[in-house]
Amino acid sequence: MTTNKVRIKEVGPRDGLQNEKNYISTTDKIAFIEKLSETGLDYIEVTSFVHPKWIPQLADAVDVLCNLKRRKEITYAALVPNIKGLERALQVHIDEVSIFMSASEGHNLSNINKTISDTFPVLKEVVEEARLNNLAVRGYVSTVIGCPYDGPVKPEQVLYVVDHLIDMGVKEISLGDTIGVGVPTDIERLLEVLLKKYPPYLFAMHFHDTYGTAIANIVKSLEMGILTFDSSIGGLGGCPYAKGASGNVATEDVHYLFTKMGKQTGLNAKKLLEAAYFIESKLGKTLNTKQLAISRSEVNH
Amino acid sequence: MTTNKVRIKEVGPRDGLQNEKNYISTTDKIAFIEKLSETGLDYIEVTSFVHPKWIPQLADAVDVLCNLKRRKEITYAALVPNIKGLERALQVHIDEVSIFMSASEGHNLSNINKTISDTFPVLKEVVEEARLNNLAVRGYVSTVIGCPYDGPVKPEQVLYVVDHLIDMGVKEISLGDTIGVGVPTDIERLLEVLLKKYPPYLFAMHFHDTYGTAIANIVKSLEMGILTFDSSIGGLGGCPYAKGASGNVATEDVHYLFTKMGKQTGLNAKKLLEAAYFIESKLGKTLNTKQLAISRSEVNH
Repeated sequence: MTTNKVRIKEVGPRDGLQNEKNYISTTDKIAFIEKLSETGLDYIEVTSFVHPKWIPQLADAVDVLCNLKRRKEITYAALVPNIKGLERALQVHIDEVSIFMSASEGHNLSNINKTISDTFPVLKEVVEEARLNNLAVRGYVSTVIGCPYDGPVKPEQVLYVVDHLIDMGVKEISLGDTIGVGVPTDIERLLEVLLKKYPPYLFAMHFHDTYGTAIANIVKSLEMGILTFDSSIGGLGGCPYAKGASGNVATEDVHYLFTKMGKQTGLNAKKLLEAAYFIESKLGKTLNTKQLAISRSEVNH
Repeated sequence: MTTNKVRIKEVGPRDGLQNEKNYISTTDKIAFIEKLSETGLDYIEVTSFVHPKWIPQLADAVDVLCNLKRRKEITYAALVPNIKGLERALQVHIDEVSIFMSASEGHNLSNINKTISDTFPVLKEVVEEARLNNLAVRGYVSTVIGCPYDGPVKPEQVLYVVDHLIDMGVKEISLGDTIGVGVPTDIERLLEVLLKKYPPYLFAMHFHDTYGTAIANIVKSLEMGILTFDSSIGGLGGCPYAKGASGNVATEDVHYLFTKMGKQTGLNAKKLLEAAYFIESKLGKTLNTKQLAISRSEVNH
């Protein structure tokens, strides 16, 4: 049976904002998340419990989650780096937590300050404590195609990390091309290896558009059976360690792609633009997604 | 037999510049084309013999072609709208001419001021006169996916126009998604119809990136056997009648894609950037291709 439904998971408030220099107030973050909640999204990663020393932009994680007006059909998720982060997160209500690590040693060391094998027990502790609290855990694997330190990453190396996360009990793995170097043939090679062992519903794809290939990579992933995709409204974000500093693929552009391909995202294009314009006004910089450019040119015509 | 070679045909000096408001001097146009000639390109569409009333930017077509330093391995082509345009073009040396029309009535009427059936004899006259002068003719078919006036365009309608152009003796047809609305499933449906009747080497694909899908569409076309692609350095251009006003897919970004996919373009990435920076400085506006953004961020790091 084939389905026409695809699922977009919004990571803008967390993965997007965490790299933005202009501080967004807690009130504005909440308003932003509430605007996203009106778009039809059923999954929003709203903040991070990484220590505020590392991500000052998201130091107000508890305040955001305490004051958010929630909709019951939406999963509000937060990122946690370790058991201390999880303990902070458990002070407030969250629906799901995400953990993260990299497929490459270089990026993992730089981002987490641990080797890959030393990271596994840290994450296992989180997954077990989350289970005791009836919380599902999503796992991000970064640098699944290329690493800014180690260069190309082999599918087998990604499989090695995926195996460990699935053994721990992670319920979905988001495969991130963190520096956006991948092209569809890379995605094909990676997914061929992973889908030989695991069913496609275990994976989400998380693309950055540094080299302009994110949409093409989404199409290839979809052709290979993947139905869940991370994206960021307004293309917010980007990796501070990556050349080009290009952001996540934009939710509104992914929505256009899927809709034109006859897929159902459940999202409302007009509401997506409203959320994008809102955060653009708060960031005080122009966001350059295709849908925003088209919308602006319509206003000017 | 599969080949690793793909061919990029550069349309920046013509399709790119024709929509730019800032006038580029003849000297600068020539310098631009000469910079492009150093990149490894073997095909450059350098100008247009459309009446200067319609495209004042390219009124200096004769001067450009007379003063250009040529390389014998490069095909220098020019666009001609009708027999009058061809007669002007024949005053100077050119290697190939291009003709153009649309797959949709609405765009053809707006762009050429004729119906599709009234356009055929006009183009036939050009092809026959070109043949007498030993000039090959390339045919552009615009709006092959969607039309700003008529909406979606059926593959059968494109086939109808392609049939006529091939009957005339056009040696290659460039299929243009002029307003950039296409997604890979559209490209697949179109090429399935055309490739049932004709071999892939008769076609080139010409994508605009209005909705961010150009690279994905190139990948799909390549998967279906197409090996020739039009692009524009710096993403120059765009259709003045199209929403979003986004330009042609950028040569340097297409080069990245193909190279990373293991294909050989024969192009030099550094020289491509030099040509892009050159025309950017002359246009006095920032060109936003991915490769330019990456290059700028490397300088700033």
